[in-house]
Amino acid sequence: MKMYTLYYAPGACSLASHITLEEIGADFERRRVDFSTTEQQSDEYLSLNPKARIPTLITPHGSLTETPAILAYLAQSHPDATLAPLDNPFAFAQLQSFNSYLCSTVHVAHAHRGRGHRWVDDESAIEAMQRKVPETMTACFRLIEDTLVKGPWVMGDAYTVADPYLFTVTRWAVRDSVDIESLPKVAEHQRLMTERPAVAKVLEIEAR
Amino acid sequence: MKMYTLYYAPGACSLASHITLEEIGADFERRRVDFSTTEQQSDEYLSLNPKARIPTLITPHGSLTETPAILAYLAQSHPDATLAPLDNPFAFAQLQSFNSYLCSTVHVAHAHRGRGHRWVDDESAIEAMQRKVPETMTACFRLIEDTLVKGPWVMGDAYTVADPYLFTVTRWAVRDSVDIESLPKVAEHQRLMTERPAVAKVLEIEAR
Repeated sequence: MKMYTLYYAPGACSLASHITLEEIGADFERRRVDFSTTEQQSDEYLSLNPKARIPTLITPHGSLTETPAILAYLAQSHPDATLAPLDNPFAFAQLQSFNSYLCSTVHVAHAHRGRGHRWVDDESAIEAMQRKVPETMTACFRLIEDTLVKGPWVMGDAYTVADPYLFTVTRWAVRDSVDIESLPKVAEHQRLMTERPAVAKVLEIEAR
Repeated sequence: MKMYTLYYAPGACSLASHITLEEIGADFERRRVDFSTTEQQSDEYLSLNPKARIPTLITPHGSLTETPAILAYLAQSHPDATLAPLDNPFAFAQLQSFNSYLCSTVHVAHAHRGRGHRWVDDESAIEAMQRKVPETMTACFRLIEDTLVKGPWVMGDAYTVADPYLFTVTRWAVRDSVDIESLPKVAEHQRLMTERPAVAKVLEIEAR
């Protein structure tokens, strides 16, 4: 029995937790959830995560959902990996603020392209949502570039759990027509991430 | 000079931070942001919070945004107030998970009623969004009732920073046509919250 089990879907927001487990060198099992057969709505999966979403992290203490919570939990539970400023409540809060912005604003803006049925029923409204995604995602990434990322990593010189989360969301932004090359800090961040062995390994596994 | 300054708008999600400052007995100044004159988009406010949203908390170390980050920061900075399970990373993560769900899913579902222009441009799509809000908010609150709130408080016997946040969002749910009386834990939680002196005081100040 491994210490953790991560339920993930390739390229979804679970990628941030997946990379973090790999960075820590954690003893964990990977369980791919098959969205094509709506496995996330199966009774078995709902018993682990009644939200029918990924990621779910099974820990020795119980199951956890929501990316910012999982990332902070992993950082706090593995202090030797130094993935968050654990001894500085203000710096820790800045990290939480960044991750909170990604989940509540940026992920949501992106989801209006492929998950419009969450918020409307009719097809013309879904198309109206899709049309605006390049504009909303570009505005989010302009803010990230200009005011949030300190560089080279999100929090400055130290790599933290904010970095795999930004990496994940930036991959979506590219597909949402955000011109990443006009955002030097974000573009450099993305490049640095792909050089990390943990990132390369996880991308390879998720692509299988 | 006070230790903190909170920028808030009456009844907005800043209510959770406002109540928490009052519960702590913090030395803080209140600054109401006038949405009717779009003060949140003034140069002065944007210099504090380039997101043009509330809340913003000015701390001795700098400014903070995003409700889950502010709430965790206040709990960590004032451990004597025991507003979070600070010595237990899993329990702390459960609290963060709850607050993350409120900001990324429930607040977003609610915002489709009054802030549809964030995600679409045309009026018929905004109306389509508004029509679905009672359904999406009811689904969120069904999940909160059945799987998230331990009772009587969100985390069980201990009052934490999740409680003023749930209180804030439940007030919106009532206006979004969620039948709170069909949700016994949520209804009782709302009632218990109004009995707290800090809550009564803040509601009175925000109503002025």
